[in-house]
Amino acid sequence: MSEISIKHLLGIRGMKRDDIETIFNTASEFKEVINRPIKKVPSLRDITVSNLFFENSTRTRLSFELAQKRLSADVVNFSAASSSVKKGETLVDTVNNILAMKVDMVVLRHPHPGAPHFLAKKVNTTIVNAGDGTHEHPTQALLDSFSIREKIGNDLEGKKIAIIGDIKHSRVALSNILALKLQGANVRVCGPATLIPKHIETMGVKVSHDINETLAWADVVNMLRIQLERQGDADSIKFFPSIREYTMNFGLTTERLNRLDKELVILHPGPINRGVEISSEIADSEHAIILDQVENGVATRMAVMYLLANR
Amino acid sequence: MSEISIKHLLGIRGMKRDDIETIFNTASEFKEVINRPIKKVPSLRDITVSNLFFENSTRTRLSFELAQKRLSADVVNFSAASSSVKKGETLVDTVNNILAMKVDMVVLRHPHPGAPHFLAKKVNTTIVNAGDGTHEHPTQALLDSFSIREKIGNDLEGKKIAIIGDIKHSRVALSNILALKLQGANVRVCGPATLIPKHIETMGVKVSHDINETLAWADVVNMLRIQLERQGDADSIKFFPSIREYTMNFGLTTERLNRLDKELVILHPGPINRGVEISSEIADSEHAIILDQVENGVATRMAVMYLLANR
Amino acid sequence: MSEISIKHLLGIRGMKRDDIETIFNTASEFKEVINRPIKKVPSLRDITVSNLFFENSTRTRLSFELAQKRLSADVVNFSAASSSVKKGETLVDTVNNILAMKVDMVVLRHPHPGAPHFLAKKVNTTIVNAGDGTHEHPTQALLDSFSIREKIGNDLEGKKIAIIGDIKHSRVALSNILALKLQGANVRVCGPATLIPKHIETMGVKVSHDINETLAWADVVNMLRIQLERQGDADSIKFFPSIREYTMNFGLTTERLNRLDKELVILHPGPINRGVEISSEIADSEHAIILDQVENGVATRMAVMYLLANR
Repeated sequence: MSEISIKHLLGIRGMKRDDIETIFNTASEFKEVINRPIKKVPSLRDITVSNLFFENSTRTRLSFELAQKRLSADVVNFSAASSSVKKGETLVDTVNNILAMKVDMVVLRHPHPGAPHFLAKKVNTTIVNAGDGTHEHPTQALLDSFSIREKIGNDLEGKKIAIIGDIKHSRVALSNILALKLQGANVRVCGPATLIPKHIETMGVKVSHDINETLAWADVVNMLRIQLERQGDADSIKFFPSIREYTMNFGLTTERLNRLDKELVILHPGPINRGVEISSEIADSEHAIILDQVENGVATRMAVMYLLANR
Repeated sequence: MSEISIKHLLGIRGMKRDDIETIFNTASEFKEVINRPIKKVPSLRDITVSNLFFENSTRTRLSFELAQKRLSADVVNFSAASSSVKKGETLVDTVNNILAMKVDMVVLRHPHPGAPHFLAKKVNTTIVNAGDGTHEHPTQALLDSFSIREKIGNDLEGKKIAIIGDIKHSRVALSNILALKLQGANVRVCGPATLIPKHIETMGVKVSHDINETLAWADVVNMLRIQLERQGDADSIKFFPSIREYTMNFGLTTERLNRLDKELVILHPGPINRGVEISSEIADSEHAIILDQVENGVATRMAVMYLLANR
Repeated sequence: MSEISIKHLLGIRGMKRDDIETIFNTASEFKEVINRPIKKVPSLRDITVSNLFFENSTRTRLSFELAQKRLSADVVNFSAASSSVKKGETLVDTVNNILAMKVDMVVLRHPHPGAPHFLAKKVNTTIVNAGDGTHEHPTQALLDSFSIREKIGNDLEGKKIAIIGDIKHSRVALSNILALKLQGANVRVCGPATLIPKHIETMGVKVSHDINETLAWADVVNMLRIQLERQGDADSIKFFPSIREYTMNFGLTTERLNRLDKELVILHPGPINRGVEISSEIADSEHAIILDQVENGVATRMAVMYLLANR
């Protein structure tokens, strides 16, 4: 397997197109591994990885942990809830302490945008960003692209891909835009005006507020999750009048899909709100590749950790 | 080792008597394994098990986890507290996501009766019920029967076994009744009228509200735990006037035991409330097989997982 | 490797000087192991260790867990938060249950002083005290001494070592005093009168309330952590007027250090409050051996567990 140009995976920003290709070639091999009866390789037998999660995330943490175990790495989990962070320790001190225990690689989820980039400058280890606030979530974007290419062919040049929903608060959206553009895709974002960041066109994407037009245009759609827990909260700002209205205007309903005379590939980063941003029927249909995304998540994360450990 | 007729362990209901015998024969072999200096076998080296606990349970979770490790399975733990369930995801979606990460077997504890049965119909994996609400707790019943047979002989046909305490809210009671009846035992339940479900006689058990009479009749008694945390709660319904009164009427006291001119075998699923449902002296006596139950729990769970994985 | 005279590591009290030497010789060998590319030995392959933490402690728990994994032990973690302790179970019953599952060694952190000593009398296993209330924290004292000897030479006879800060509530202070005295060191404690226990001189240490005088005297200083979370709490007793005043009177500032015409070796058990008990500049300087302490913590704990398991 070949090399990648990056020392850390901090974001899609900073990656070269070749890095993505290298990761995907490696991920394909690992996907084959995890579908064997013996789903394990000894590649990282001598590596200890610490998953540092300063935000809850069962799904991403499990995916990383399984990727690490399939590579035979030693894994130590660390969550903020029970940590010395509460005792006033700085992030750099926390990580340096863990590294002094001979940990080789850190997977970091942190609520502050830029936290992994800051850390990478301050500590001497390999860092994988598992989501930093509303900023980036690079492994999610990688697994999304990998899943799209499995479905519609390996070349995304000129392919029409729409990201629909809360673009403003979504690290998945930002990383996806960067990754898809790097692969030459044509990217459009769609959602209510309150959920589209200003000036996003400067990233080379088109903006639409009309889901029907967007669906008619697209080959692939990535339906983002509406964070119901935010909407319900009295203290939080509401970005749309009601969930029902959101679904009416931006939900991927069976009716909308049936009106198209083409096959759409449908992604969703999960967890899905059935009947809100996507209908139950569509989520369970052959067009949706939601569970492929989850499976590819393990393979992609294996590839990232393998390649970073072997630079 | 032979086969079992079940694909999942959802409850004792649905099992054949032969299944129980197969599990116990296998558990005996594994009990020998965990008492060797090297307490491990490579049997499930290629299997990944996820423990999905939607309710707290240190004791059962540890027992399953150790059983899995003794079989060399890969283990990923998942607890509801930090899970995407809070984000509105359905149980089926949560489990399908975990399975897409190439998990082979799911051990499920869930507050809703029937949750594992529902899941078994909806997802494609092997499910072990580690307790579903007030419904069943089949591995507990299996380890209880295994422990009784170790003590009083391998044939329970006609043996007199009493279950004493809160029968109404106890999944341990229900699974035990089913398992013991399947093995031909004579079962009696005993407790205050408020804690005995109506129509329980239709399960083929006798009801008594007199502990002295029950003790005089029984060869074996299984003392259920009084859930003090329920009693103390002002919002909850009280099922008996006071703890002191419960102990007076239904506690296994030394005085009561001394009045019998026979040896009783005493079980308790733990954690015990010393001085409430059982006196401290009795809990620590040779008649109580409480710690044997714990040890046999690991062996029995190893057998269940081994047999289900090798069907 | 030779033997140690103790069956458990309950505290420094009860250890012989030779035990410390044996542990340090073994720790040196393990320190070499964890700095190899393959950081693991199969020494405890057949041992299952349970980390029972009835108090939160990320740092100590991680260090023990990594030490166990480097020795290839099977590890099961147990934390009080989700435990049956809440259900009214006694500590002895909880531990006996875990032991019945064939656990060989228990690492215990408990808020009550003496809890591990009490347990050691009641249950049949090997116990390592990972901190019991304000009483002892023996592995911390061992790693501190090991780190000091690495820096200033293997013989502490007559060396001048000061412990500065909250001596009264610190198990680190007590275990350090005992360990250092056992090795023949000259020990002084320094802090505000409210944070020095009465009659501490009976342990053979000198007391000072003047940090400048203490620094002028010492070869080595161990700066204890000020527990800010205590100070901030309205309900708690305040032991000094303000954090600023504490720093003014007892903080290790750069100015104070510059006034000395000698090299000081500086320890801190972490997590550090930068700018409170120690200046940021000093914490990051070559004089501070804080991260060596962390690294040596893993090696020392490996040695303790290895030696106790092989008695």
